[in-house]
Amino acid sequence: MKIAILPGDGIGPEIVAQAVKVLNVLGESFELETAPVGGAGYAAHGHPLPEATLALAKAADAVLFGAVGDYQYDNLERQFRPEQAILGLRKNLGLFANLRPAILYPELAGASTLKPEVVSGLDILIIRELTGDIYFGQPRGVRECPDGPFKGQREGFDTMRYAEGEIRRIAHVAFQAAQKRDKRLTSVDKANVLETFQFWKDIVIDVHKEYPDVALDHMYVDNAAMQLVRAPKKFDVMVTGNMFGDILSDAAAMLTGSIGMLPSASLDANNKGLYEPSHGSAPDIAGKGIANPLATILSAAMMLRYSLHREEQADRIEAAVKKVLAQGLRTADIHEAGTTLVGTEAMGDAVVKAL
Amino acid sequence: MKIAILPGDGIGPEIVAQAVKVLNVLGESFELETAPVGGAGYAAHGHPLPEATLALAKAADAVLFGAVGDYQYDNLERQFRPEQAILGLRKNLGLFANLRPAILYPELAGASTLKPEVVSGLDILIIRELTGDIYFGQPRGVRECPDGPFKGQREGFDTMRYAEGEIRRIAHVAFQAAQKRDKRLTSVDKANVLETFQFWKDIVIDVHKEYPDVALDHMYVDNAAMQLVRAPKKFDVMVTGNMFGDILSDAAAMLTGSIGMLPSASLDANNKGLYEPSHGSAPDIAGKGIANPLATILSAAMMLRYSLHREEQADRIEAAVKKVLAQGLRTADIHEAGTTLVGTEAMGDAVVKAL
Ligand SMILES: CC(C)[C@H](C(=O)O)[C@@H](O)C(=O)O
Ligand SMILES: CC(C)[C@H](C(=O)O)[C@@H](O)C(=O)O
Repeated sequence: MKIAILPGDGIGPEIVAQAVKVLNVLGESFELETAPVGGAGYAAHGHPLPEATLALAKAADAVLFGAVGDYQYDNLERQFRPEQAILGLRKNLGLFANLRPAILYPELAGASTLKPEVVSGLDILIIRELTGDIYFGQPRGVRECPDGPFKGQREGFDTMRYAEGEIRRIAHVAFQAAQKRDKRLTSVDKANVLETFQFWKDIVIDVHKEYPDVALDHMYVDNAAMQLVRAPKKFDVMVTGNMFGDILSDAAAMLTGSIGMLPSASLDANNKGLYEPSHGSAPDIAGKGIANPLATILSAAMMLRYSLHREEQADRIEAAVKKVLAQGLRTADIHEAGTTLVGTEAMGDAVVKAL
Repeated sequence: MKIAILPGDGIGPEIVAQAVKVLNVLGESFELETAPVGGAGYAAHGHPLPEATLALAKAADAVLFGAVGDYQYDNLERQFRPEQAILGLRKNLGLFANLRPAILYPELAGASTLKPEVVSGLDILIIRELTGDIYFGQPRGVRECPDGPFKGQREGFDTMRYAEGEIRRIAHVAFQAAQKRDKRLTSVDKANVLETFQFWKDIVIDVHKEYPDVALDHMYVDNAAMQLVRAPKKFDVMVTGNMFGDILSDAAAMLTGSIGMLPSASLDANNKGLYEPSHGSAPDIAGKGIANPLATILSAAMMLRYSLHREEQADRIEAAVKKVLAQGLRTADIHEAGTTLVGTEAMGDAVVKAL
C-alpha cells in the first residue's frame, strides 16, 4: 500500500509529521512518499500542483494532505495560487464524495460559541459533492454582457451544472452512509429557485427508492444554514452540492468550536481518497509548534478505514485520540483552564503513546 | 403617499394587521390599499402575483409585505408556487438592494442558541444584491449534457452572472450604509473559485476609491459562514450577491434566536421599497393569534425611514418596540420565565399604546 504524503504550506508540514509518526507505529508496511503541493509546489516547481506530485497522488492508494496557502502566494495569478492544487487534485483524481463529520467531543463542549446543551454530543456527517457544480462548470469567464439592462457592459459569469449520473453517485454514497448511522438523510437544495437543484431533488427522490430503510427529507439551503445554528443535533447525514456544501460544512465545523479536531475524506468511485484536516494552513502560527495535529491524525484514521481497509487500526487511532483528550491534553486552540497545554509534537507523541 | 399592503399567507394577514394599526395611529394621511399575493393570489386569481397586485405595487410609493406560502400550495407547479410572487416583485420593481439587519435586543439575549457574550449587543447589517446572480441568470433549465463524462445524460443547469453596473450600484449602497454606521464593510465573495466573484471583488475595490473613509475587507463565503458563528460582533456591514446573501442573512438572523424581531427592506434605485419581516409564513401557527408582529412593525418603521421620508416616525416606532420589550411583553417565540406572554393583537396594541 502506497500513501502519498502532501504536507503543503503553513502548519501543514508540522501536523502531517505527527500523523506520519502515528502511521509509522501501527506496524503496517505502508510505503510513504512525500511531495510538495500548494505554495510549496509553486516554490519548488513553479506550479501549485507539480506534475510529479499529481503523478504520485494518482499512483498511490491514498493521499494524506496537510493544508495549503501562505501570505507570499496571495498575489499570484489565480492559476498559480495554492488552492488550485486542491481543485486540481479533486478533479484529476475524480474525488467526487467529500465526507465532513462535525463531531463535538464532550470534553470540548466549552470551546463552542453555542450553548453546551445545543451542541454537546453533536455528531453529524455532511456529504458534499466535490467535482461538479459551479466549481467546474463551463462556460465561465468575463465577457461582454449579451442582454438585459446591462447589455454591452463587462460581466462575470459561471455555470452551475449537475448531470443525472453525478447526482446519482453522490446520492448513493449519502444513503449508504446514512444506513450505517441513524438512517436519516437531509438533502439540501434550492429547488424553489434553481433548475439545477430541482433536478437534484428529483434524482435524489428517485435514488431513495433503493434505500427504503433511510428516512429522506429535503431542506432549502438558507433554511439549512438556520437549522444548523438553531438545532444542529437534529441532523444525522446531510448531502448537498459542491457550493452549498462548501458553506454548510464550514459552518457546521465551526459550531463545534474545535475545528482543529475535524478530519475529512474525499473519495473516488473506488474508495481511493484524499484525507485532510478541515482547517486551513494557518500561516500566522506556522513553525511555532503550537498547531493542533489531531484533525490530521484523525484524517489518517479515516484513510485507514475508507481506502486502506484497516478498520481496526482506524478504531485504535480514534480511541487513542479520545484517550489523550480524557487525559486533559490540549493544544492552544482548545485549551481551557484546568487542562494541560501541550504543543504539536507533544500531542503527536501522546497519541503514539496512547496507541 | 400610497402604500400597497400585501398580507399574503399563513401568519401574514395577522402580523400585517398589527403593522397597519401602528401606521394608522401615526397621524399621517397615507393611503393604504390591500391586494392578495402568494397562495392568496393564486386562490383569488390563479397566479401568486396577480396582475392587479403587481400594478398596485408598481403604483405605490412603498410595499408592506407579510409572508407567503402554505401547505395547500406546496405541490403546485413551480411557476404557480407562492414564492414566485417574491421573485416577481423583486424583479419587476427593480428591488436590487436587500437590507437585512441582524440585531439582538439585550432583553432577548437568552433566546439565542449562542452564548450571551458572543451575541449580546449584536448589530450587523447584511446587504444582499437581490435582482441578479444565479437567481435570474439565463440560460437555465434541464437539457442534454453537452460534454464531459456525463455527455448525453440529462442535466440541470443555471447561470451565475453579475454585470459591472449591477455590482457598482449595490457596492454604492453598501459603502453608504457603512458610512452611516461604524464605517467597516466586508465584501463576501468566492473569488478563489468563481469568475463572477473575482469580477465582483475587482469592482468593489474600484468603487471603494470613492469611499476612502470606509475600511473595506474581503472574505470568502465559507469563511464568512464560519466567522458569523465564531465572532459575529466583529462585523459591521456585509455586502454580497443574491445567492450567498440568501444563506448568510438567514444564518445571521438565526444567531439572534429571535427572527420574529427582524425586519427587512428591499430597495430600488430611488429608495422605493418593499418591506417584510425576515421570517416566513409559519402556516403551523397561522390563525392562532400567537405570531410575533414586531418584525412586521419594524419593517413598517424601515419603510417610513427609507421610502416615505418620515425618519422621526420610524424612530418613534422603534422606540415603542423597545419600550414594550422593556415592559416584559413577549410573544410565544421569545417568551422566557419572568416575562409576560401576550398574543399577536395584544403585542400590536401595546406598541400602539407605547406610541
Ligand atoms: C480552497 C477552496 C478552493 C476550497 C473550496 O472552496 O472547496 C476550500 O474552501 C475547501 O472547502 O476545501
Ligand atoms: C422564497 C425564496 C425564493 C426567497 C429567496 O431565496 O430569496 C427567500 O428565501 C428569501 O430570502 O426571501
